Amino acid sequence: MVDVAIIGVGQTPFGTHPDKGLKELFFDAFYEAVDDVQKGFDPKLIQEAYIATLETGGGQLGNMAALMMENVGIPYVAARRVENACGSSSFAFRDAYLAIKSGTLNFVLVAGVEKMNDLPRERNRLWLGVSGDNEWERLAGTNFPGIFALMANRHMYEHGTKREHLAMVAVKNHYNAARNEKAQLRFEITIEKALNAPMIAYPLTLFDCCPTTDAATTVILCRSDLAKNFTDIPIYVWGSGAATDFLAIHDREDITRLKAVELASKKAYEEAGVKPSDIDLAELHDCFTIAEIIEYEACGFAPDGKGWKLLEDGTTTIKGKLPVNTSGGLKAKGHPIGATGTGQIYEIVHQLRGDIKEKERQVRDAHIGLTVNMGGSGGTAAAHILSNERR
Amino acid sequence: MVDVAIIGVGQTPFGTHPDKGLKELFFDAFYEAVDDVQKGFDPKLIQEAYIATLETGGGQLGNMAALMMENVGIPYVAARRVENACGSSSFAFRDAYLAIKSGTLNFVLVAGVEKMNDLPRERNRLWLGVSGDNEWERLAGTNFPGIFALMANRHMYEHGTKREHLAMVAVKNHYNAARNEKAQLRFEITIEKALNAPMIAYPLTLFDCCPTTDAATTVILCRSDLAKNFTDIPIYVWGSGAATDFLAIHDREDITRLKAVELASKKAYEEAGVKPSDIDLAELHDCFTIAEIIEYEACGFAPDGKGWKLLEDGTTTIKGKLPVNTSGGLKAKGHPIGATGTGQIYEIVHQLRGDIKEKERQVRDAHIGLTVNMGGSGGTAAAHILSNERR
Repeated sequence: MVDVAIIGVGQTPFGTHPDKGLKELFFDAFYEAVDDVQKGFDPKLIQEAYIATLETGGGQLGNMAALMMENVGIPYVAARRVENACGSSSFAFRDAYLAIKSGTLNFVLVAGVEKMNDLPRERNRLWLGVSGDNEWERLAGTNFPGIFALMANRHMYEHGTKREHLAMVAVKNHYNAARNEKAQLRFEITIEKALNAPMIAYPLTLFDCCPTTDAATTVILCRSDLAKNFTDIPIYVWGSGAATDFLAIHDREDITRLKAVELASKKAYEEAGVKPSDIDLAELHDCFTIAEIIEYEACGFAPDGKGWKLLEDGTTTIKGKLPVNTSGGLKAKGHPIGATGTGQIYEIVHQLRGDIKEKERQVRDAHIGLTVNMGGSGGTAAAHILSNERR
Repeated sequence: MVDVAIIGVGQTPFGTHPDKGLKELFFDAFYEAVDDVQKGFDPKLIQEAYIATLETGGGQLGNMAALMMENVGIPYVAARRVENACGSSSFAFRDAYLAIKSGTLNFVLVAGVEKMNDLPRERNRLWLGVSGDNEWERLAGTNFPGIFALMANRHMYEHGTKREHLAMVAVKNHYNAARNEKAQLRFEITIEKALNAPMIAYPLTLFDCCPTTDAATTVILCRSDLAKNFTDIPIYVWGSGAATDFLAIHDREDITRLKAVELASKKAYEEAGVKPSDIDLAELHDCFTIAEIIEYEACGFAPDGKGWKLLEDGTTTIKGKLPVNTSGGLKAKGHPIGATGTGQIYEIVHQLRGDIKEKERQVRDAHIGLTVNMGGSGGTAAAHILSNERR
């Protein structure tokens, strides 16, 4: 069976880009990935592209995958858009990975691009996002902060999780983002500041919620057996898993769990042949702080209901045993929806290469990294396990 | 390498469905495909789903792939939306095909679903569709009939194609649709009627343009070596090709050609190991009649500029040597955007099995069929070659 490696990654700064459109953001991230290939890479080698975006510029740009590719000077290649809400680019990554594994393709681009700040205000903040269950949630008057607040309240009630634990996720991820020059919210906060911030949906304050972000992120995938021609430091894809769940949380078995993440990470572990304890660092989908805590449990890092312990004992800080969201996460690095999944890959690739620009947040001696990216409130999820060692 | 077979297909009637939403249309087509598997099929065998839609109910339903799967009672499977405008479901088909070829999956669902009649009028007719080049075409005031009219005028000027040839495409496809109980425009027309219909964009009259359609279409794919457990009549996927072109036709090398179709069909032929002369029948993307004529040329059925000859000599009629659009095509069967590509697969599968319900349009002794599905005005294209014989 063919194995797959990552030879280049690119990423625009996360934030507000009033001066750039989707094409320009994509262009910047594309050529950063091309230039990132250590021994050089002719972009014309790219055979197909999997491009993720949710909003397509507010529905204004159609056939966007082809449009992005012609705009970087690589027309004619087969390109398609993959969309699974906030989980779009991790599914694009999975499909590109499977395409190379099929033996049909050697070089494939995966990308995500989103300009959330160009959207109407009621849409861009995702407070009224359409990626949950519209008929039973949005049209009934709730929204993503409301939905994650329900999950948080129940988790607190059943498992003893405290508001302080939520705040600890925010403090940790802001600490990391403050050391990431491409992050959106590059400042540290304190537990007190997080707890006393304006309440959005109890128990979630402003600092429990991710910001509104523009960005593009790119990954160049290649057959493993060709990778060393392009770089001495390929990052190998050991495992990929994906799953879905009921969109409306009232249909789920347990709203204190994220079943799609459980299923996706289990499949990724199985394919990679590793256990949760083998993971050296992870980028988890912390659109709201409670999500990171539940994902600790869903990924097998903590028993059900005990995710908060990893915060109390410092396990997931940058100096801890299992650093999580060294990039700053969705919480503080930012959450450009369709570009988030490949942005997580970008972070893990640099960490595993050991070439994080800001040395203060470089994890030492990391060999295996995990990414978990969700769509909606966990209606879709994909997990990937990467390593700097060949399997 | 793993080969891929189709074991079941489903399709709602094409047309206007005011009584059904996206979920209901998808449900109907899904269970028709399940019931279509000759020896029975437990839908819980499906491991992943690739679901195509352009409009997601006017942007009202997010995370739609997961939503469709939970609604048919198969939650938790990995599902993603694939979108390439009018070519969405053929790209979904290609990605599902590659996923099985990777050796990772055994059973995959491909589907398309669209309710064009629920959209605002200026959008649902695609006259102002966003799937061409928005910045240089739509915002400059043109639209799809206008763009295809430019292509038709130039084709007439350079190659001697006549308005009567366009009308012959319409007459042929309406003839076939009149014999397809699932087609939208089930009536025959004459050359005179087509020529004298209201002018939409010279030289295209009303009968040169496809209608506005609601529908869902589904395909169940399986590893070839497992297919005989489920059916004595699997249809094998011999070849798949996909490509893109510049979205704006002023950027293209030649507006009388469809380069993405040329590239996609060439790749499909190469993978299948067949020539254009080996094809027994084809479903081509006739959103406008001129497109079918140009695709005759792009697929190698006629030399450049000579597509009209196949109409004059009757090659592509139901009784001809190479029947094209036996379903009625987009022109008369209908064009439900995201559901069109898998709808073409549906037709070829039944033709190759020899079980077309309306015997009058059953092509005899057909062994190899081609589908060509485009997005926009040819900005994206995918081609597939199917056979009732194992390769």
